[in-house]
Amino acid sequence: MASKVVPARGMRDILPVEKARREHALHVIREVYRSFGFDEVETPALEDLSRLESGQGGENEKMLFKVMRRGLAVDEPLLPADAADLGLRFDLTVPLTRYVASNAGSLRMPFKALQIGPVWRAERPQKGRYRQFVQCDIDIIGEAGALAEVELVTATHTALTRLGLTGTILRINDRGVLTGLLTGCGFAADDHGSVLITVDKADKIGLDGVLAELRSKGFSDDQVTALEKSLTELLPLTDVSALGSGVLPEAVPAESISRLQEIAAAVELSAPDLEVRFDVSLVRGMGYYTGPIFEMSLPTGGSSIAGGGRYDNMVGRFSGRDLPAAGFSIGFERIIDEITLPTDGAGSIALVHPSGVDAGALLVKQQELVATGARVTLVKQAKRMQPLFDALVAEGYTQVVRARLDDGVLSFSDPAPLAAS
Amino acid sequence: MASKVVPARGMRDILPVEKARREHALHVIREVYRSFGFDEVETPALEDLSRLESGQGGENEKMLFKVMRRGLAVDEPLLPADAADLGLRFDLTVPLTRYVASNAGSLRMPFKALQIGPVWRAERPQKGRYRQFVQCDIDIIGEAGALAEVELVTATHTALTRLGLTGTILRINDRGVLTGLLTGCGFAADDHGSVLITVDKADKIGLDGVLAELRSKGFSDDQVTALEKSLTELLPLTDVSALGSGVLPEAVPAESISRLQEIAAAVELSAPDLEVRFDVSLVRGMGYYTGPIFEMSLPTGGSSIAGGGRYDNMVGRFSGRDLPAAGFSIGFERIIDEITLPTDGAGSIALVHPSGVDAGALLVKQQELVATGARVTLVKQAKRMQPLFDALVAEGYTQVVRARLDDGVLSFSDPAPLAAS
Repeated sequence: MASKVVPARGMRDILPVEKARREHALHVIREVYRSFGFDEVETPALEDLSRLESGQGGENEKMLFKVMRRGLAVDEPLLPADAADLGLRFDLTVPLTRYVASNAGSLRMPFKALQIGPVWRAERPQKGRYRQFVQCDIDIIGEAGALAEVELVTATHTALTRLGLTGTILRINDRGVLTGLLTGCGFAADDHGSVLITVDKADKIGLDGVLAELRSKGFSDDQVTALEKSLTELLPLTDVSALGSGVLPEAVPAESISRLQEIAAAVELSAPDLEVRFDVSLVRGMGYYTGPIFEMSLPTGGSSIAGGGRYDNMVGRFSGRDLPAAGFSIGFERIIDEITLPTDGAGSIALVHPSGVDAGALLVKQQELVATGARVTLVKQAKRMQPLFDALVAEGYTQVVRARLDDGVLSFSDPAPLAAS
Repeated sequence: MASKVVPARGMRDILPVEKARREHALHVIREVYRSFGFDEVETPALEDLSRLESGQGGENEKMLFKVMRRGLAVDEPLLPADAADLGLRFDLTVPLTRYVASNAGSLRMPFKALQIGPVWRAERPQKGRYRQFVQCDIDIIGEAGALAEVELVTATHTALTRLGLTGTILRINDRGVLTGLLTGCGFAADDHGSVLITVDKADKIGLDGVLAELRSKGFSDDQVTALEKSLTELLPLTDVSALGSGVLPEAVPAESISRLQEIAAAVELSAPDLEVRFDVSLVRGMGYYTGPIFEMSLPTGGSSIAGGGRYDNMVGRFSGRDLPAAGFSIGFERIIDEITLPTDGAGSIALVHPSGVDAGALLVKQQELVATGARVTLVKQAKRMQPLFDALVAEGYTQVVRARLDDGVLSFSDPAPLAAS
């Protein structure tokens, strides 16, 4: 084979050390969410194309991997639109709404769902971004009260803490706050989407950048000046309990503020080491959110590691039932590099053996060591062991046991430390 | 939405109770294989179509889900063959050979790989068979000796035992025994494939059925009679140690017999409760096997639950390196219904609360119970609780804790048994 053999464009292999870390993290996440009463469900990777192209997925619909119909005549040309009938899911939200509709009869409400699985997007390949990646979503369907948000946040905070990601910060806002604010500044409802896309960039381009972009979009000086005044006052305001009357524009519904305060007060009890901050510039891209929205980030800052919010209309619209809903998604690919595998309690042992040792006797010894909780790999004696030992250390092996054959009698050394050169 | 909303044709949703059982089984399998030194790797679901259609996958290549090229002009008709460039993998073996080639530089030999993941085949949908299903493969690349087979069998037996699947039976044979037998009966090498397809059906259609089918395929009376004599003698023979000289035709290589005996003797030591049986009618469909082949089945009989064998040429052929290899695959979809979830140690608790209870206080109680190891779900008080309790019992909940509000003071009952009606 002359050409280099590589995964398909934009795809990658996950090598053992990283795969072990990923599976450890997924197991912890599963266990924590399960303990909080979330039920894991799995939907197929493929969905009918008509569902994936129904408008629920926004920009993601443009990055679909479409699957060709089976049994097409090989010699009949056809248009691309006629050639495909299925697609690979680009998120776990579209499949969830389909799941709720398909299984409506058997769902106990509120339905607390956990979904973990790969999704696919044909994005332009770039360093560190792949066309297949794992999403990890929890959703509570059928609970209109703040209890849903509090459970989502508390369970996710517990999972992240269990993974060693401590000191996280929760930023919260509410779509009602945002629309009330924009209304108060004189923006028409039809323009809110466009304005929010710009406000969403505040953490990257700063307040000045936001204002400049709004001017370049053609909004009036009055509007931009009013927004500048509001944001200048509100951006430094992070204490949710300080959002009393008079602080936010009158157009902000009182219910939005009391809901935020209810969530913040409850989370202070249920997750006392989670810092809760109001953030007026928190927008969350997806237009389907209807109430509180939130993001979690590490104390070191940087992009958020989890995000979600309330989206009361969507499940109903797509499932044919009118259902309140709220969801939270861990940015699995963002946290995975921050996680350290716990060291194996009983260690990882390289069982080095000369050739010619009876396979059965060797396996009996291996199982004896495995029964102590160790991970044990068999390694054939070689002339130069050090390169092998170096590789084993890199794979996390910490001890060596040596098999010896003396006049046909097999014996084993005690475990000794395994040292890299 | 008027029409019934269902998963794509041939696909299914996996509901919580089954999903929990599947994830439990996968976790046990991962832990056991990892303890035996297998390294889990993950390859992408999509591979280049040219690789999936290279002939390595036999009949499975006809059941490909092909993925359309991105960015096709919407108004230009084209032939199906020109429209696709990727495909969903139909097994984990093709991706493994690609993985070995892609990562050749970083693999420590022998490379002991574990792969667990979904595969897709556009089979005609039928009851209990789905177009997406999970495969679970282990492979040892770079070990020519029987140690590979013994490790594959011992680790798999340990995993199945840990899942509660005890009393399994291992049937073994060797491709050398089969080809030697056919040569001894006068079948030309070119006909071996066709004859073996028929012999493979012995457990379904019996010896008479096999002989009849061979006659109808046009093989001579001499050939069929010779095979009848051999099979009549060998079918009842299950003791591997009895395969001495004179028992098998001379054309069977002595090495094939000694290898089988070496494996059986070692497994007797390493997995004493695994019954090993020689089975001359064991063929295994895939033509790429080159040496020992084996299948495991439950003591209750029925189809095999795991199977594999040695395939020394294939990885080399596709990866550009000459490498011995042996693999074993658990039929995950076949075992999953046989597995019982272990009961949660601290139980599963429904925390029933009236509306209006402070969310923070409720979550604090939930976490207190979760900290004891319990799974805890919040349930809002309703007028008719029994239908809810029935649903909770079906989901595995065993206890109930009741929150009470008396004059604004919150209290909780002790856990009490949860009873279905």
